[in-house]
Amino acid sequence: MPLANRMQRSLQYSPEGPGLQIIDQTLLPHQLRVVSLRTLDDFCTAISSMQVRGAPLIGVTAAYGLALSLAADASDAALGDAIERLLETRPTAINLAWALERVRAEVVDVAPARRAGVALAAAQQLAADDIAVCQRIGEHGLTALRGLPALAAGRTLQIMTHCNAGWLAAIEWGTALAPIYAAHADGIPVHVWVSETRPRNQGLHLTSWELEQAGIAHTVIADNAAGHLLQSGRVDACIVGSDRTVANGDVCNKIGTYMKALAASAHAIPFYVALPVSTIDWACATGADIPIEERHGDEVREVSGIDASGREADVRLTTASAVAYNPAFDVTPAALVTALITECGLVLPTQLAQSKQALLGAG
Amino acid sequence: MPLANRMQRSLQYSPEGPGLQIIDQTLLPHQLRVVSLRTLDDFCTAISSMQVRGAPLIGVTAAYGLALSLAADASDAALGDAIERLLETRPTAINLAWALERVRAEVVDVAPARRAGVALAAAQQLAADDIAVCQRIGEHGLTALRGLPALAAGRTLQIMTHCNAGWLAAIEWGTALAPIYAAHADGIPVHVWVSETRPRNQGLHLTSWELEQAGIAHTVIADNAAGHLLQSGRVDACIVGSDRTVANGDVCNKIGTYMKALAASAHAIPFYVALPVSTIDWACATGADIPIEERHGDEVREVSGIDASGREADVRLTTASAVAYNPAFDVTPAALVTALITECGLVLPTQLAQSKQALLGAG
Repeated sequence: MPLANRMQRSLQYSPEGPGLQIIDQTLLPHQLRVVSLRTLDDFCTAISSMQVRGAPLIGVTAAYGLALSLAADASDAALGDAIERLLETRPTAINLAWALERVRAEVVDVAPARRAGVALAAAQQLAADDIAVCQRIGEHGLTALRGLPALAAGRTLQIMTHCNAGWLAAIEWGTALAPIYAAHADGIPVHVWVSETRPRNQGLHLTSWELEQAGIAHTVIADNAAGHLLQSGRVDACIVGSDRTVANGDVCNKIGTYMKALAASAHAIPFYVALPVSTIDWACATGADIPIEERHGDEVREVSGIDASGREADVRLTTASAVAYNPAFDVTPAALVTALITECGLVLPTQLAQSKQALLGAG
Repeated sequence: MPLANRMQRSLQYSPEGPGLQIIDQTLLPHQLRVVSLRTLDDFCTAISSMQVRGAPLIGVTAAYGLALSLAADASDAALGDAIERLLETRPTAINLAWALERVRAEVVDVAPARRAGVALAAAQQLAADDIAVCQRIGEHGLTALRGLPALAAGRTLQIMTHCNAGWLAAIEWGTALAPIYAAHADGIPVHVWVSETRPRNQGLHLTSWELEQAGIAHTVIADNAAGHLLQSGRVDACIVGSDRTVANGDVCNKIGTYMKALAASAHAIPFYVALPVSTIDWACATGADIPIEERHGDEVREVSGIDASGREADVRLTTASAVAYNPAFDVTPAALVTALITECGLVLPTQLAQSKQALLGAG
């Protein structure tokens, strides 16, 4: 796990138990607590309560959850039930469904007695694949960053990101942060503008913490400040992740992404979306067809942090009777996205459909 | 004062003391505390700490502050010093300077012994004028709202606002909320989307509270959710206030306004800016010339609310070492603004320069 050995990894399978060790990301950045998931309930709660979050991490965690649930009951009925329950935890994340289908396909024609072992091997392969995919996203993204005029001018590269699409959202490296880690490792001077990402503040809680661990210069901002920064020429490129990208290139990502993309476009600043090909929902035609998860209004009304004595505390910002609306994602139209950074290279989102065979063949 | 007699008014002059009673807006919505400002220090602190905020209220409060400081020392030196200190409290608010200049012009040629009385009368006139101005803004804004297709279709009017430009930001009525109060008073069904307005959460703390007092339906959202709402057709018009609007029609307002205007423009949703003519800085050519106040990074790193026991508490969201950048305002280009709603009627921001004589003549 991270920090203990300086390796930045978001989960670890442990044969004892057996269990999957994860970081309870709801406690970061104030507390680094590793928890063990063993039962299907553990896994469902961990995903729905966002102890684990981020499209790639959700998929791999769910795969391990399915494998461990099969160790308890490997019947066809239990297999179907476990998949159904895991699918319901986060309706927008497309590679949750993708990862579960990968495991299901491996075990469905296998005798129940062997299913748990086969499923575990499939989950471990998904984790290994994700690491390799993120590494390649980092390399392709770095190539894109090398082309920015700021570098030729000898300036520090100014990158804006939103939410958290680092190694905490994947297994290692991350998606949106992978090119930044790659640039930093390559000695390129880089500074990251981290938007807080209300209502859950993943920027303040997770991205800022990740970059601090890695020693990468960064500054946190209110989401509202992004437009001013993009307008005043202090950002060279934006890179965000994606929870689901659809056939026409529309990108569904954390709420607030869309307005940042609009502002980047208004000032001709490259807006990149970094994503594994598994995040692409080919069956979904346009962004308008994506179901947008609505979360509890308390996420808007209340904020979690630590109080003056260092204890975790929630504070309420509104009157008790205030009504809140809390969509978790929004859709950025393909036309606002400069390029999708995938493990297979850069793809123009407006030409995603034409690239389908090449992307799926390479994956 | 409000609540006590159901009159919604943000300040009250009291001859005893003498003092200016204001609402400490940093305590809303959890506590309604009225405090008395007496010394120049009191006034400077109240403005810089944002116990009072909002362009019109800042101007009138500063005028009272100048009047009460002259009661203590009415010499030329004290007059100059008081103006200088009051001006420094909030560098972006243009009608702070405008209000102080109005009072200064009234007293500068008056014998010191009479200055305090003349200044007090001038401050009271400014307050009365502001109420009348806001009422007219409400009437002109209502005319604009009546033209929206939603009303013809018999639907509830869906208005989005940002920050707080209600009576808490003025003396009565407010600017951006004045048309909404006027519509509600006229029996028009209206629902308001209230964006939280990080980092200081004026939407959650103040606008939501104001609308609750008035019995107007409203829903609070994270700032990030505005783009999704505008994209999905659930907003008929946006109305915001302005801290400073300049000669070419560019509008400086609370940070985050610019991205909402971009999103409204992308979906052809009217984006109105409600402002007294006194908020127009004719000497400033374009938005790029406006100094943008930067506030302390703790406003981003920390959030104030009430804890589970109902006590006021601050929580920190980041690690202690996180660096934050906190610009308080941004500039919305004139081209994104449908119309300026002034006390003299609607003005196209791109034709502001041509309207100068008419606006100043009427004012």
